[in-house]
Amino acid sequence: MVEPLDIEGREHALGQLPDWVFNPVKNGIERDFKFDDFVQAFGFMSSVAILAEKQGHHPEWFNVYNKVSILLTTHDANGLSEKDIELAHAIEKLV
Amino acid sequence: MVEPLDIEGREHALGQLPDWVFNPVKNGIERDFKFDDFVQAFGFMSSVAILAEKQGHHPEWFNVYNKVSILLTTHDANGLSEKDIELAHAIEKLV
Repeated sequence: MVEPLDIEGREHALGQLPDWVFNPVKNGIERDFKFDDFVQAFGFMSSVAILAEKQGHHPEWFNVYNKVSILLTTHDANGLSEKDIELAHAIEKLV
Repeated sequence: MVEPLDIEGREHALGQLPDWVFNPVKNGIERDFKFDDFVQAFGFMSSVAILAEKQGHHPEWFNVYNKVSILLTTHDANGLSEKDIELAHAIEKLV
């Protein structure tokens, strides 16, 4: 079991991730990305995949052509945890 | 503009793709895949990505951990076309 972030912790974390929004239905944070084409979009996904596997924490994500939507949530915490924030920061460094 | 398949063409094509189902809302065909873990799931996605780019036709897909859901539809045809059937067969050869 992982500790979920409380509202204060979440607001603080999101203050440092201005492009991510909290989704209360999914109890996670999400961001949409748009690239020039599929090769760029999937190249980005490949980088995220390696980071995710390294951190032992994986995204829920959707892709169509040049668009990628990422949702980060922690099933073991029934919500948002520090693991999501770490992965979001790692993803931010890629873009 | 790409020609969409008519109902007969679709039924014929789906007869040869028993694991794929037609989604009338999305006007495409879909299949869910389950793997042992994320590395296997993303390895599969990487293979599909290369095939898709080679065929110039890309999936709408979702991944979470070991699960991958693929929807194939042709926006230029406003529905299912021969391009989707070709990509589905190429994907079937991978699994």
